[in-house]
Amino acid sequence: MNAKSALSTDTTALIQRTPVLAGEDVAAKRREIANWFNATFERYESLFETLENETGFYRKSIPLRHPLIFYYGHTATFFINKMLLTGLIKTRVDAKIESMFAVGVDEMSWDDLDERHYDWPSVSRVRDYRQAVKKLVNKVIASAPLKLPIDWQNPWWAILMGIEHEQIHLETSSVLIRQQQLDYVRKQAQWRPFTQTGQAPENQLLPVTGGTVKLGKAFDDPVYGWDNEYGDHQVEVADFQASQFLVSNQEFLEFIEAGGYEHVEYWTEEGNQWRRFAKATHPTFWVADTSGWQLRLMTEVVPMRWDWPAEVNYHEAKAFCHWQAEKTGKTVRLPTEDEWYRLYDFAKVAELDGHPAEANIHLDYAASSCPVNLFQHGDFYDVIGNVWQWTETPIYPFDGFKVHPIYDDFTTPTYDGQHNLIKGGSWISCGNESRGSARYAFRRHFFQHAGFRYVVSDAPVNVVDSHYETDKMLSEYAEFHYGETYFEVPNFQKTLMEYAIKAMADKPKHKALDLGCAVGRGSFELAREFDAVTGIDFSARLINLGVQLQQRGVIRYTIIDEGELVQYREQHLASFGLSEFADKVSFMQGDACNLKKTYQGYDLIVAANLIDRLYDPALFLQSIHERLNQGGLLVLASPYTWLEAHTEKTKWLGGFKKDGESFTTLDGLHYILDEHFARIAEPQSIPFVIRETSHKFQHTLSEVTIWERKR
Amino acid sequence: MNAKSALSTDTTALIQRTPVLAGEDVAAKRREIANWFNATFERYESLFETLENETGFYRKSIPLRHPLIFYYGHTATFFINKMLLTGLIKTRVDAKIESMFAVGVDEMSWDDLDERHYDWPSVSRVRDYRQAVKKLVNKVIASAPLKLPIDWQNPWWAILMGIEHEQIHLETSSVLIRQQQLDYVRKQAQWRPFTQTGQAPENQLLPVTGGTVKLGKAFDDPVYGWDNEYGDHQVEVADFQASQFLVSNQEFLEFIEAGGYEHVEYWTEEGNQWRRFAKATHPTFWVADTSGWQLRLMTEVVPMRWDWPAEVNYHEAKAFCHWQAEKTGKTVRLPTEDEWYRLYDFAKVAELDGHPAEANIHLDYAASSCPVNLFQHGDFYDVIGNVWQWTETPIYPFDGFKVHPIYDDFTTPTYDGQHNLIKGGSWISCGNESRGSARYAFRRHFFQHAGFRYVVSDAPVNVVDSHYETDKMLSEYAEFHYGETYFEVPNFQKTLMEYAIKAMADKPKHKALDLGCAVGRGSFELAREFDAVTGIDFSARLINLGVQLQQRGVIRYTIIDEGELVQYREQHLASFGLSEFADKVSFMQGDACNLKKTYQGYDLIVAANLIDRLYDPALFLQSIHERLNQGGLLVLASPYTWLEAHTEKTKWLGGFKKDGESFTTLDGLHYILDEHFARIAEPQSIPFVIRETSHKFQHTLSEVTIWERKR
Repeated sequence: MNAKSALSTDTTALIQRTPVLAGEDVAAKRREIANWFNATFERYESLFETLENETGFYRKSIPLRHPLIFYYGHTATFFINKMLLTGLIKTRVDAKIESMFAVGVDEMSWDDLDERHYDWPSVSRVRDYRQAVKKLVNKVIASAPLKLPIDWQNPWWAILMGIEHEQIHLETSSVLIRQQQLDYVRKQAQWRPFTQTGQAPENQLLPVTGGTVKLGKAFDDPVYGWDNEYGDHQVEVADFQASQFLVSNQEFLEFIEAGGYEHVEYWTEEGNQWRRFAKATHPTFWVADTSGWQLRLMTEVVPMRWDWPAEVNYHEAKAFCHWQAEKTGKTVRLPTEDEWYRLYDFAKVAELDGHPAEANIHLDYAASSCPVNLFQHGDFYDVIGNVWQWTETPIYPFDGFKVHPIYDDFTTPTYDGQHNLIKGGSWISCGNESRGSARYAFRRHFFQHAGFRYVVSDAPVNVVDSHYETDKMLSEYAEFHYGETYFEVPNFQKTLMEYAIKAMADKPKHKALDLGCAVGRGSFELAREFDAVTGIDFSARLINLGVQLQQRGVIRYTIIDEGELVQYREQHLASFGLSEFADKVSFMQGDACNLKKTYQGYDLIVAANLIDRLYDPALFLQSIHERLNQGGLLVLASPYTWLEAHTEKTKWLGGFKKDGESFTTLDGLHYILDEHFARIAEPQSIPFVIRETSHKFQHTLSEVTIWERKR
Repeated sequence: MNAKSALSTDTTALIQRTPVLAGEDVAAKRREIANWFNATFERYESLFETLENETGFYRKSIPLRHPLIFYYGHTATFFINKMLLTGLIKTRVDAKIESMFAVGVDEMSWDDLDERHYDWPSVSRVRDYRQAVKKLVNKVIASAPLKLPIDWQNPWWAILMGIEHEQIHLETSSVLIRQQQLDYVRKQAQWRPFTQTGQAPENQLLPVTGGTVKLGKAFDDPVYGWDNEYGDHQVEVADFQASQFLVSNQEFLEFIEAGGYEHVEYWTEEGNQWRRFAKATHPTFWVADTSGWQLRLMTEVVPMRWDWPAEVNYHEAKAFCHWQAEKTGKTVRLPTEDEWYRLYDFAKVAELDGHPAEANIHLDYAASSCPVNLFQHGDFYDVIGNVWQWTETPIYPFDGFKVHPIYDDFTTPTYDGQHNLIKGGSWISCGNESRGSARYAFRRHFFQHAGFRYVVSDAPVNVVDSHYETDKMLSEYAEFHYGETYFEVPNFQKTLMEYAIKAMADKPKHKALDLGCAVGRGSFELAREFDAVTGIDFSARLINLGVQLQQRGVIRYTIIDEGELVQYREQHLASFGLSEFADKVSFMQGDACNLKKTYQGYDLIVAANLIDRLYDPALFLQSIHERLNQGGLLVLASPYTWLEAHTEKTKWLGGFKKDGESFTTLDGLHYILDEHFARIAEPQSIPFVIRETSHKFQHTLSEVTIWERKR
């Protein structure tokens, strides 16, 4: 802290921090939560005092989002919806209003304009509604049974979620107000901006020593968190350099004057698309005036604050870095989320406490950014606070991520590689937003009170695929191979491969081939015992999930509960004890009926649930011995579900009358295989279950036969 | 017996009767079976001695069947195939020959000509093959382990089946030889026909007193039988009159001379079709000559035997009856199978024994028909023997019918309403064919050594539907409602209805409505407790199976094992203890979303696995209270498997996000039903399993909610 001492702060006026949810004194906790709720609820209402007139409520600030009237009602409705879900209340306050105010037009893409018309209620009606909700929430806080700690399963989680949700909208609504036409807003004493300004400091790169970053909140952490903060993530961050200050308006001006907005090559492809669509030539809150650049704040336009942070979206920040890189010959880029945390640790930043923050955050000082050299953290400034800082990292789930059951679309829709994390919070980031663990992500073209710091590092940016596989077929296979047990039927691939391995007895176990490997569980299971396993499937999409597990150790997918409602699943190769064997597996796309010559010399070939899905199973079986070593085993598992959709009837191995007698698939297998094989065990049924919905399953018996190559 | 004493018979030359398969002396039984086998095998070969030259073997007798060379080899191959199936032998004798001689072109329709070409082997090659088979079968009979009795499960059943199969072909081949061109056949001493002939007797109707007919062989009966003979059938036959004699050629001539073949109105529609196709103007074995009518026997043409039975197909016999009916004003028709058995009992006919038959049967006398007044049984003649007698009855399975596992297409393909039973046997009917229990059926246009006796009765002809439902959907439902238990999941409809009835407690139980009743098991279960049950389904085809159970007490269907291979199933309402309640059920076709006004005043309405198959489930639920008495219960069971194929997405009750929150089907049910109902129990899952193949099942959890009408 240096310049901070110049600021007047009144500790008693400080906004309460997000509460600890454990403790012994239930009555005190009720009071603390009530205060936290009321202060948040009222501060949110006071924000809308900055709207000059009703037009400010109804005229959209930006076409991509609802008008502010929606957000005014929305945070109240949210309390009702979530409290209904956890049973804290049984009935709605106003079903019509609540239907209208339930879902925001958040997160729309700039090329995805929503032109729906809403017949919004009057401001006073919404104000009355808010009062009714406030009264109800207070009643619940005062009277609902409360058992501490308040954890995910506690019905009270809905109240904390409602409060933190309102904190988010406090910030995002402040941005919308900042984007509203100036005639519709007005200054308010409570929302007075910083006035301090001066010459921007010369920015410089300072070293950050690498180290271990360990992230992820424990599920029994006593402070409220959003789902994306939980789980485990640990990584070694290499040494890097970071700019001492956030990029100031002064520093960003150089980029503009260097023609940064006109040089296509500084922008990513997506960045160029946005730039052209938005016709952007400067930061969105910069206002060109005859007297030069001015700066739009929330409720006013002021002369440009050259030492305040440049507020831009990811694309602008990224273009700036490309320009810097070209200019300096250094590998300039934005930090990753991991690097931001490394800087956080390196600069010894601490969580806020009851004292005024040593940062421009949580509304502790004023309602705007401030000079980039006001709040020091170690050698750096503004590691937290002032404005959010864009990172290179699209948000992704930590290992062990779970969605909270009453808000399953808070984060999951952003696990799409298109929402980048912003870190550190801004001057208006209160509650959870101000915490070190907070993880918020926005589309890269979006504007918040956000700027950036740049880093120089040769370390590659590791983008974690956060995609949840939602394709029904792929998800069903993923759950089939790696998911839960249904009807007490043990995992099919594991059972089958154990059976195959047992049949191998003392035979050499060098190479195994898993034909029709699908998402790969069987291949990994074989790798426990074999030196090398080839997993081949016709479907590259199926194989891809196996490859993901092999490369990243994790896959994520949704499974259908009913209709369009899904559950989120995450599976780790490690949890099956398979990580150490993963490298022995080679996954390849291939056609079992037309395999490349190179696939040979196997000691074991397994074809699980394959033969009745081939277009010409006999073609496959007639030459399969060529790929198997003498004495090697061929293991076939199939429910013999012959369908013309997969195999034309003339190609079925059995399941018809031949010369007047029933000719089973087993007969057909003998007919083809006896030339080179002897069947060495009685057919055995191994069951499997494929989950289609939470109520509907395929329950199948796969007949397993084992054939030893004799000739 | 009267004229029979005039015949020379040599008891020692009598053909052995089909053996008793029980006993203590295994060695003696081997010898008896060996004799029975060899005598049959050799007699069959001797039959082909009546072919003058090889052309007789290769030129088709009639276009609808293979040439005789096929039948010469076929009976030998049959032994091999069936012995392989029961494990009596492990390898084939001649795979190529056996492939060619496996399947006859039996049972084709006259409008279904087969034009395939076969490259038949030489007669001597087939003769050698037969010798090899004969040697092998003798070896098996001499050495295969034998445990008495030989029952269905005994591997030796295959040998008996082979022998009886050859007996059948002895008769059918004798017909084909009789249909072969005269130049290709020759007389043989062993196959000498009757020569006795004279004036035909005047036929007259004699009374047969009605009585109980009890049919169906026990599965532990010690004499070989074909699958269709087993099970239970009991019926009261009313008094009727029957012609004393089989209709003679003389008597049939009157029909011809009365223009019988030209009068369309005497013939059934199918009969007319055949008559036109065949251009028939007289019985097939009648030969017009300048000197008048002559008669084709097996190996020769002789002057017409006017006192021998007319040999015709069903259509000709039926037309004769219509003509007689018109002429006499009496209800003349053919006997039913039941009436034939009543006559058999009434005339005190007995099974053959080691003495010469008191009938022209089993080749005991000569190789042709004989006068219709030669063999007397009570007041009647030829109740058995001489020629087969057409009946009005299409063959159908007795209750408890099972297919024999090594010959599942012996009878089942004829359960199609198009194969009528012939009874009594002919002069060449040996072994099983000569037994009272024998049941053979042929297409109505087919020729055998068959004629008819007519009866006069006002009793309606009860045609039993012998159809095996093979439609996949219908069969799966039938098995779901009435079939086996899979994965130890108890019957769903029974469990659900018991749960519903329990929930009714002391409420009145007058009327229940089973909506989406499918094949009706739930409706019948409700009828245990309710005075009246309405079962409604959209699918008339599904309901039809319920109606069949209600009216006939039995349904039959096939279930898929794998590919096209099926199992035959028969379900009796009685076996579920439901027969006594069946009359309380009314099955109706209807649309749950558009029910007729008349369906109201119910105490219970059950909709099992219905709502997620409706095109507008809300429409259904919104008005369902109108049909329920105050205080009555609505029971909904559904896996909530919403699919756009059944219900467009906008009509789903739940399973989507509504106003941002997960809106389950249960939420949707409350949303609609709370206006008139209170849910009175926690949702409960009841599982069910639908079998698709022997290896593949749908395993589903249906969520059951109970709603009491309050308003």
